[in-house]
Amino acid sequence: MDEFDFIKSIQQKNYKQPSLIKGVGDDAAVFRSTYQDTVTSVDTFVENVHFSIETMKPYHIGYRALAANISDMAAMGCNPAYYLVSIVIPKHWSEQQLADIFEGMKDLASVHNMDLLGGDTVSGNELVLSITVIGFVDKDKARYRSNAVSGDRIFVTGTLGDSAAGLHVLLELDEKDQEPFSYFINRHRMPTPRVSFAKRLQSLSRVALNDISDGIANEAAEIAEASKVMMHINYEQIPSHHQLDQFDYDKTKEWKLSGGEDFELIGTVSEKEWPLVVKIGEETNTKVTAIGYVSELTNIAHNVMLYENNNKQVLHKSGYTHLK
Amino acid sequence: MDEFDFIKSIQQKNYKQPSLIKGVGDDAAVFRSTYQDTVTSVDTFVENVHFSIETMKPYHIGYRALAANISDMAAMGCNPAYYLVSIVIPKHWSEQQLADIFEGMKDLASVHNMDLLGGDTVSGNELVLSITVIGFVDKDKARYRSNAVSGDRIFVTGTLGDSAAGLHVLLELDEKDQEPFSYFINRHRMPTPRVSFAKRLQSLSRVALNDISDGIANEAAEIAEASKVMMHINYEQIPSHHQLDQFDYDKTKEWKLSGGEDFELIGTVSEKEWPLVVKIGEETNTKVTAIGYVSELTNIAHNVMLYENNNKQVLHKSGYTHLK
Repeated sequence: MDEFDFIKSIQQKNYKQPSLIKGVGDDAAVFRSTYQDTVTSVDTFVENVHFSIETMKPYHIGYRALAANISDMAAMGCNPAYYLVSIVIPKHWSEQQLADIFEGMKDLASVHNMDLLGGDTVSGNELVLSITVIGFVDKDKARYRSNAVSGDRIFVTGTLGDSAAGLHVLLELDEKDQEPFSYFINRHRMPTPRVSFAKRLQSLSRVALNDISDGIANEAAEIAEASKVMMHINYEQIPSHHQLDQFDYDKTKEWKLSGGEDFELIGTVSEKEWPLVVKIGEETNTKVTAIGYVSELTNIAHNVMLYENNNKQVLHKSGYTHLK
Repeated sequence: MDEFDFIKSIQQKNYKQPSLIKGVGDDAAVFRSTYQDTVTSVDTFVENVHFSIETMKPYHIGYRALAANISDMAAMGCNPAYYLVSIVIPKHWSEQQLADIFEGMKDLASVHNMDLLGGDTVSGNELVLSITVIGFVDKDKARYRSNAVSGDRIFVTGTLGDSAAGLHVLLELDEKDQEPFSYFINRHRMPTPRVSFAKRLQSLSRVALNDISDGIANEAAEIAEASKVMMHINYEQIPSHHQLDQFDYDKTKEWKLSGGEDFELIGTVSEKEWPLVVKIGEETNTKVTAIGYVSELTNIAHNVMLYENNNKQVLHKSGYTHLK
């Protein structure tokens, strides 16, 4: 299959987004957004850095990469609409494997009515998947990390540490022993970006949002830095799945604080609007948990504090950061 | 430098585009386009497939990659506004080399008042540079390949074969013998996408446009296929630089027809509006040359014909296609 046949194979017959004028097939795609702001970001995934074929099937690689991008849209309180895909594919990969990557993306895209706007597929030595996602949000309703204010309540969606637990199970347990932990494996391979919850937050007057891609320690610090506030987190309140207790305490603590890749949301909101967040959680079937509060910044080097068993400690950014 | 320091280093202090609300620094960027259509595409460049450090400095790699993307915007008759960059950088590359790649992009972006909306930089084994570009065009004025009509005149901008000649000089000649051919080397390393010319074509009622990234043989075939017409090209009319005659005839013919990477435009326009194209060429200091005409499609397998010395032959797609 050459490049041109491949592009034809990923062209959609029908567009889902009403704003789309021209999808895949020309030099570029064209869409029209008249009443909303446009939101866009890019994320890149490299084989053996961000994923391994040992623990993910090609379908999962596509699914999870798009999920990570959609999660960025959720973190902006925005509705994902389009994606563009760049793939560097090693020569030893088969056409079927490449098709499976696109199938994984397509299945998740369908859930969110997203259209593919462009695809560039080239040969190389290692698999690289880079996705640009584009979404829409009501004017001036994009949710920034810099929106936190002293006195806010801090909340997270879902349960944390699941994805890291899933990776641990896949790497450390024999295949026959993995089955009881299929929940964690699924959370690792096919995470659920919190789009419907985040969209509904548009009714709030103010909310700071970040998605948990590199671990809550890192994401809380990003909010603290951008908002110039201090974040106080109670470790015991961080929500986790009941099966997580079956693993070693130190491991689970690391997974919950720095595991990342859960693609849940961390946010801060005024006490006054907190009941609204709880209500939106119930209505969108999204678990929401209060885990702490925001105060004024007193020490720039110690902007995230962690409380556990009445002990207070500084929580450093320890999320996995690339390019070191 | 870790990922966070790097993102800070590429943040712009001021935005050039009035539609930009939030640039690099949050989960995603936000912009607002109320009166125009939005156009977007992605292009990916892999070391030793699309470029080599033997013939390009890091600065040129960045410059040319963005030029190729901007050229896609020109091919849509559109005004480039934003770009997002994903880089996989091998560990043995230095911070300075990475900074030089961004410098090359930034210098060309400045020419077109473009803002950087996002950047993801990760480690890998081979350099991969993937750019998503976003631009704006007046409503319903995007220029598709499918706009060609029987009776149209075919034109190209600039001169063809320059970039391939530059690559030949860089690969085949000793450094001391390259200097007389610096024109071709510059065209290879720092091509000029035809934005100002393409934008002005918005005043035309209809024009089919494609940019010459894979050679005119291939691009003409793309217009023929999309428009379901036949393209007739006179080889002698294909414009080339006067120094190209210094090379072997067969080589120059291949460079002109299939060399690609010149990032000139090929278009078709009605005879009635052809004088307008000539005028816009003059006003934007863009060389424009008529090279043939469009007829009705009589044979789907032979949709591009080449005439030379009164010989008529079928011109097959022979542009370089990846993923073979």
